[in-house]
Amino acid sequence: MQFSVLVDIRLRDGISDPAGATIERALPVLGYEGIGGVTVGKTIRFTIEAADVGAAREAAAELTESFLTNPVIEDAELTVEALVAEASPEPGT
Amino acid sequence: MQFSVLVDIRLRDGISDPAGATIERALPVLGYEGIGGVTVGKTIRFTIEAADVGAAREAAAELTESFLTNPVIEDAELTVEALVAEASPEPGT
Repeated sequence: MQFSVLVDIRLRDGISDPAGATIERALPVLGYEGIGGVTVGKTIRFTIEAADVGAAREAAAELTESFLTNPVIEDAELTVEALVAEASPEPGT
Repeated sequence: MQFSVLVDIRLRDGISDPAGATIERALPVLGYEGIGGVTVGKTIRFTIEAADVGAAREAAAELTESFLTNPVIEDAELTVEALVAEASPEPGT
């Protein structure tokens, strides 16, 4: 069964965010007022083959922690959803 | 009134995603099977001062299109939510 996974990665609290700080500094110069707390993160989306949603989440969490993020400075939030197979039936499954 | 804004930025369909492709190529070598369709995007979060949620969304959309993304290759999805002011009452507001 296929699942879609969204890994939402943010810098941990207290870790400096130079990209966000740069955007925030530039905004008043560009005429945008009243904007603060700018932070920049990243997302990684993929599909994963697993027996059920629990197994998909476990595999995705392991992959996220060991390979997709740096847990020392980054926090990740996982969203796992079943993908409904539509127009691509596979013979033998 | 303060609103929190999440800008979820993804490459448009058909735009090549070298970061995602590199991750996808590396996974089988590292022992991860059954993972496909890897894409990498970014998120920008900030707070904005506006009269109501409509004004906040409009200002955030304008900022996103003109400054935070490249609309030629990127698609952005906005999530705007009212921030409940908690422990910081401002005199005069």
